[in-house]
Amino acid sequence: MTSLKTPKGTMDESPRQCFLHEEIIERIRRVFVLYGAVPISTPTFEMKSILTNKYGEDTKLIYDLKDQGGEICALRYDLTVPFARYLASNKIRRMKRYQIGRVYRRDQPSIARGRLREFVQADFDIAGECIQMMADAEVVSCVDRILSMFGIGEYRIKVNDRRILTSILEVVGVSCESYGTVCSTIDKIEKMSWEDIGRELVLKGLSEEQVRTTKKYMTMGGKEDVLGLLKADPVYGIERCKAAVHDMEELFRLCRILGCSGSLVMDISLARGLDYYTGMILEAEYVGKSVGSVIGGGRYDNLTENLGERCVSTPCVGFSVGVSRIFSLLYEEYDKESSTMVYVGASGGLFLDERLSVLRILQDANICSETFYTRRSSFESQQKYVAKKKIPFIVVVGESEIAAGSVQVINALTRKKEIVKVEQMVSYLLDPENQ
Amino acid sequence: MTSLKTPKGTMDESPRQCFLHEEIIERIRRVFVLYGAVPISTPTFEMKSILTNKYGEDTKLIYDLKDQGGEICALRYDLTVPFARYLASNKIRRMKRYQIGRVYRRDQPSIARGRLREFVQADFDIAGECIQMMADAEVVSCVDRILSMFGIGEYRIKVNDRRILTSILEVVGVSCESYGTVCSTIDKIEKMSWEDIGRELVLKGLSEEQVRTTKKYMTMGGKEDVLGLLKADPVYGIERCKAAVHDMEELFRLCRILGCSGSLVMDISLARGLDYYTGMILEAEYVGKSVGSVIGGGRYDNLTENLGERCVSTPCVGFSVGVSRIFSLLYEEYDKESSTMVYVGASGGLFLDERLSVLRILQDANICSETFYTRRSSFESQQKYVAKKKIPFIVVVGESEIAAGSVQVINALTRKKEIVKVEQMVSYLLDPENQ
Repeated sequence: MTSLKTPKGTMDESPRQCFLHEEIIERIRRVFVLYGAVPISTPTFEMKSILTNKYGEDTKLIYDLKDQGGEICALRYDLTVPFARYLASNKIRRMKRYQIGRVYRRDQPSIARGRLREFVQADFDIAGECIQMMADAEVVSCVDRILSMFGIGEYRIKVNDRRILTSILEVVGVSCESYGTVCSTIDKIEKMSWEDIGRELVLKGLSEEQVRTTKKYMTMGGKEDVLGLLKADPVYGIERCKAAVHDMEELFRLCRILGCSGSLVMDISLARGLDYYTGMILEAEYVGKSVGSVIGGGRYDNLTENLGERCVSTPCVGFSVGVSRIFSLLYEEYDKESSTMVYVGASGGLFLDERLSVLRILQDANICSETFYTRRSSFESQQKYVAKKKIPFIVVVGESEIAAGSVQVINALTRKKEIVKVEQMVSYLLDPENQ
Repeated sequence: MTSLKTPKGTMDESPRQCFLHEEIIERIRRVFVLYGAVPISTPTFEMKSILTNKYGEDTKLIYDLKDQGGEICALRYDLTVPFARYLASNKIRRMKRYQIGRVYRRDQPSIARGRLREFVQADFDIAGECIQMMADAEVVSCVDRILSMFGIGEYRIKVNDRRILTSILEVVGVSCESYGTVCSTIDKIEKMSWEDIGRELVLKGLSEEQVRTTKKYMTMGGKEDVLGLLKADPVYGIERCKAAVHDMEELFRLCRILGCSGSLVMDISLARGLDYYTGMILEAEYVGKSVGSVIGGGRYDNLTENLGERCVSTPCVGFSVGVSRIFSLLYEEYDKESSTMVYVGASGGLFLDERLSVLRILQDANICSETFYTRRSSFESQQKYVAKKKIPFIVVVGESEIAAGSVQVINALTRKKEIVKVEQMVSYLLDPENQ
């Protein structure tokens, strides 16, 4: 027998899930537009060659399409590389764009933690040369607005700069070929104990002494004051560290002007998994919630350049919202089942023609409405349906009402009933007094 | 060098294209909701076994995913089979749902005619037993509302019943194993001359005499009156033809009540390509437009049953809107490039901090706004940008304005300029008098 299940790590969405998903996406979209971003869209699959060498160790998680005679393609892994490809192929040097779409990763799924193989990302990125840290600060402002909008609670936007991290590793004495792999261990700091982190670092070739020094840096707490500590530290002697510290100071300054510094924290241990980041990196999470980071991003100045020989460098900074993570934080409280405003019922008969006439009038007046299709229907079962779907009004068609050119309008919430002439039905329903 | 192109038959969408696409989808969605439909969503790829044996000759157009160790999957070919799978796997017997999403077909693409390998369908379907032709009529009403909404011009909704077509072939003497292949030739009537149709039918085993009789039926013109002609014809002696003619008469009657019979025509030659239709079929097009049919659909009563041994039959009727077809009819006249309402400019300096302060005030007031990022910018280049993007307002920050706690507001359309206190800026911009 054919299995009716969806493929591993994917799922159907019920109407309730879909309504919430659509709402979250629409609210995020409005914030993107508030910042002057314009939408683009790219195909669900790309030429495989575009995606290779962009995601480091995660390249193995890419879904390939079967070679059916033609090009070798793969499902997109994120929306960032397709955006870089879009910029390069259209020779665009400056753009603030958003893109909301599904991405695909052959990862170990966990539905409880909102980790699926197919999921929606909502991306906002600013491409083009800009006044130092100006676009980065606007990105933080946009992240802040999205996080506060959902009313989920307290949140934290953690920032760091890749250059600070690599400077520390240089001071510790890690060889630069190991930066990538050491960073991916450091990236797990929130999920693992320091003992386990240390053991993994030793396996990657660090001495016990080096692990201790690394730990000393990684546990420098605080918000902005960490920058002061770094300035008093030998690591500040490294040129790129100095530049990065100044950039972070400017970021905090601009974020104060933009009113988004309240939740901003400097986190030296923030590493981000992906290979393409070059400067500021950020990650945001709701405090005390189990889903982990809901937004991640950073600056990637070399991605377009690395797409091909004749591609120029276009500096970019941006972030992705993990829509499903936000979804899983809001779903429990969410109960919308229908957008219908009026249910057209019948009492004492089917009255098909009359119900269709009423529907036509309602829909012509742009009032969302529906009726029953069955050959038999009791008024009780109709009321049950209305209650379950939380539909605010019932318009009842019956023998005596039809004779009088009227309908009975029932407010499902207040239980108020009234006989209304068909010509007055629409204005009655739209009158706030009756709602 | 890596190619930067998108895979064959797929394309990127620019902001302008995306804005239009989003608008079309949102308008269609609102009509679906007007009819009381609820959304569902299904994965982009399905277990391959779900998709086989559903699309007849077109099965070869399905995109397969590579076997990377795990399940054998394929990209969805339409939203109808996934809907049937959703009903069966959730044991749902009654539902009015919409779904809007991308589907994938390895067909010969033609961008000029709006035929791509990846494209968006917007589907509306009613599942469940119902009063004869009631759901079918509501489907026609919904199609009619969508077609008239876009203001593209005159349109035609052609309907037929699969059973009428097969009854005619029975009378002509075609053996029932050939119904499918003969129907797919008849389906091309609008694209080919009768000579070519005839030649193809002869190749498929019909005699010249049979071709002549078939042609006689297929060219029975008219709207509803064709039904009268059929009733006077020997074909009416076949039971299933009689039932279908009665159904079509009831469909026209209910559509008159619903106010959607004006563009409805009976077209005996309408065949529809797909295998799963069992009763009423429909196709809609704008008269005199080159893109062909923009909506197609029909009744498919056995699809859920055919998904597996223990699956029950759930009668369904619905349609798909070819969003890209509508897109190509509207795009030429469409010119939206931005949603931004206010551009924050600077005159006589960069005034970064002041521009960010102004942006913050505007965005806190929910006014879509943006500014420039560059290290140098002339006021002329700012005005050029504003004109190109059709942004209605410029708020200019300058030395003297800053000193006075003011900004200059320019209405880009009327060229009216006014110095406004920063505290009054938002109310000034929102005042209809200044717009």
